[in-house]
Amino acid sequence: MVSVQEAYRIVQSLTAKPGVEEVDILNSAGRILEETIHADRDFPPFSRVAMDGIAVQADKFNKEGQVFLIENIQASGSPQLVLKDQNNCIEVMTGSVLPGNTNAVIRYEDLEIKDGSATILIEKIEKGINIHPQGQDAKRGDELLKPGQKISAAEVALLASVGKKSVHVFAFPKTAVVSSGDELVEIDEIPQPHQIRKSNTYALQAAMNEMGWKSESFHLTDDKELVKKNLQTILENDDVMILSGGVSKGKFDFIPRVLEELGIQKLFHQVSQRPGKPFWFGASVDRSKIVFALPGNPVSTFLCFHKYVKPWIMNCLGVENKSVTARLAADVNFTPSLTYFLQVRTEVKEGILFAYPNAGGGSGDFANLKDVDGFLELPLEKSTFKAGEVYPFISFRSIV
Amino acid sequence: MVSVQEAYRIVQSLTAKPGVEEVDILNSAGRILEETIHADRDFPPFSRVAMDGIAVQADKFNKEGQVFLIENIQASGSPQLVLKDQNNCIEVMTGSVLPGNTNAVIRYEDLEIKDGSATILIEKIEKGINIHPQGQDAKRGDELLKPGQKISAAEVALLASVGKKSVHVFAFPKTAVVSSGDELVEIDEIPQPHQIRKSNTYALQAAMNEMGWKSESFHLTDDKELVKKNLQTILENDDVMILSGGVSKGKFDFIPRVLEELGIQKLFHQVSQRPGKPFWFGASVDRSKIVFALPGNPVSTFLCFHKYVKPWIMNCLGVENKSVTARLAADVNFTPSLTYFLQVRTEVKEGILFAYPNAGGGSGDFANLKDVDGFLELPLEKSTFKAGEVYPFISFRSIV
Repeated sequence: MVSVQEAYRIVQSLTAKPGVEEVDILNSAGRILEETIHADRDFPPFSRVAMDGIAVQADKFNKEGQVFLIENIQASGSPQLVLKDQNNCIEVMTGSVLPGNTNAVIRYEDLEIKDGSATILIEKIEKGINIHPQGQDAKRGDELLKPGQKISAAEVALLASVGKKSVHVFAFPKTAVVSSGDELVEIDEIPQPHQIRKSNTYALQAAMNEMGWKSESFHLTDDKELVKKNLQTILENDDVMILSGGVSKGKFDFIPRVLEELGIQKLFHQVSQRPGKPFWFGASVDRSKIVFALPGNPVSTFLCFHKYVKPWIMNCLGVENKSVTARLAADVNFTPSLTYFLQVRTEVKEGILFAYPNAGGGSGDFANLKDVDGFLELPLEKSTFKAGEVYPFISFRSIV
Repeated sequence: MVSVQEAYRIVQSLTAKPGVEEVDILNSAGRILEETIHADRDFPPFSRVAMDGIAVQADKFNKEGQVFLIENIQASGSPQLVLKDQNNCIEVMTGSVLPGNTNAVIRYEDLEIKDGSATILIEKIEKGINIHPQGQDAKRGDELLKPGQKISAAEVALLASVGKKSVHVFAFPKTAVVSSGDELVEIDEIPQPHQIRKSNTYALQAAMNEMGWKSESFHLTDDKELVKKNLQTILENDDVMILSGGVSKGKFDFIPRVLEELGIQKLFHQVSQRPGKPFWFGASVDRSKIVFALPGNPVSTFLCFHKYVKPWIMNCLGVENKSVTARLAADVNFTPSLTYFLQVRTEVKEGILFAYPNAGGGSGDFANLKDVDGFLELPLEKSTFKAGEVYPFISFRSIV
């Protein structure tokens, strides 16, 4: 048995080499950037008018009430005009190029237009006012985005603006999601009284699909020879295997043994945690095949995926895993000498992330997961946890 | 000009009737449930063995060292066995049905098995121990999930377990995303010096795609007759229009006028906020067509979408919008009499959600958005904001 810290360290010490694929930027949100994105022009590409109004030479302004003859109109999308007489002005539109020979923009709100002239209604004009100068945000050639960046709509805007209609993102390693156990039947079957429908592979694949992590799913019955044959085929085709079930101590739980027979070395079995104690982790000698064998209890599978598998794959893709903490909102006691992953509902109040223990508490079944947002990691060394104390938080749904 | 609060209230007072569509549960994460989900069986459906070991009658246990003859083995996935002689035991596997005539499970760790018998190594056996009783988490017929629930992997597990291979989710109203302005060229074109590539419609559609909100995109050039014709067609086909650009005070910004000519009543124009002041909002007389005309500055478009449009559509779909606050991490001054949506990077430290003002600060260009996670809403009534103060936070990327 290893500690949670040791298990986490061992998992993170291995890597799977991600591939690359090209996706349309409209479908890239949530994916991880594989390429470096540079500015192909200055940002903004020209000194841009930031308000509707007139553009003038600030030096030519003397006093409130001064009148500037309107020489021309600079529309958005038109090539740059040049002010001919510096005592005149050019009417300008938000987003247009700042006309040549001008260096300040006065808003309509601060002037009056009549008979082709603009009368200034303010006392002072600062050079550069209401202008967004060329290259202020980024210079041509600047690095805008790095590999490992998770793409959101903000990054899509940047990608579009530098002319990327599609973008290279990391492809996930070839992955199999495998359920096991004769008690499981397919979703669309009516279970016998002693049977239940599969749910773990669906939960895993739904969580993975959200990240763009595609996988194939398989089911193993409790027949040792068949299990061995199927696992062998999967290991030939896939680089990552996420198993659910078949790793506790029972007579029919022979999956770890079969995996070892197939050349997958055990790196640990059993973690001093609840839920998820029977978690088994292994890899081939050359570390090219990675096997997460998660306990079959739905909450255990769910916890182990979010605590170990997700940070691992993100690490493989060069994404920095942010650690988050939350404040326990009620006292909790837990005496076994195990790290306790407490199911919590969260709420942000007054800027504080509060974690409320789930009232259903500890039954370990996944009917409760709908009412919670994640797990609070309560350390093994303690058995009483007081409201107000702060612990690591592992979320499984977006809470903000 | 209306206040942020008034604008928000007006937007939220309108609704669009969502449709329904059926999606495979593997692709349902992120979507909003349209149907009520009931338990088709008890959760768990039978009293389930929670540990590998033996099942006994707790009353028949007297003292440490007592020996129980193993009558049989209850495997997972097998129909329920019944203990014949209550002085014996049945070996049981995690996940299996609890055998009849037994009411406690003793873990392998707490016993020794030899020659077909189990010797108990502990002093006490509690009735019900290591058993997950039938119906503890939910009773058959219980409501498990309600319409308006955002589906995550946790809900997918539940859907699978009650036999739903596909599920009814809300369909978004028919929506057009419309850019405007002659300064914009397509992503794959090389812009002239006075032109820029479209980015707003891409940012909007990427953000919408993440929610499953499909839309068509259009572009309007600065030609009044053509604009009117195109807007008319869009209004005939779509129920929601999200425009970007063409709503500031400039000579060529005639879109609000054209919309009013087409029967879209202005509900407000201009909001006392930065960015996003020129925001225009309207609807048809019968309120069946909703038009968000967002200012064309990329940061303005982005802010208005996340502050107004996203909560509005979630509200239409019956989702409760959680309000989140964050703690300002540095002093900020902002004197104009406007609500200031400050770009902030966030970090959770010691359970506190800190908002760090973006160093680039205030330039308003979207090259900065990649470095921030959302906007802190600083109220119009104040002009100095101190580190440690707490304000509403609007996130545009998952921060936890």
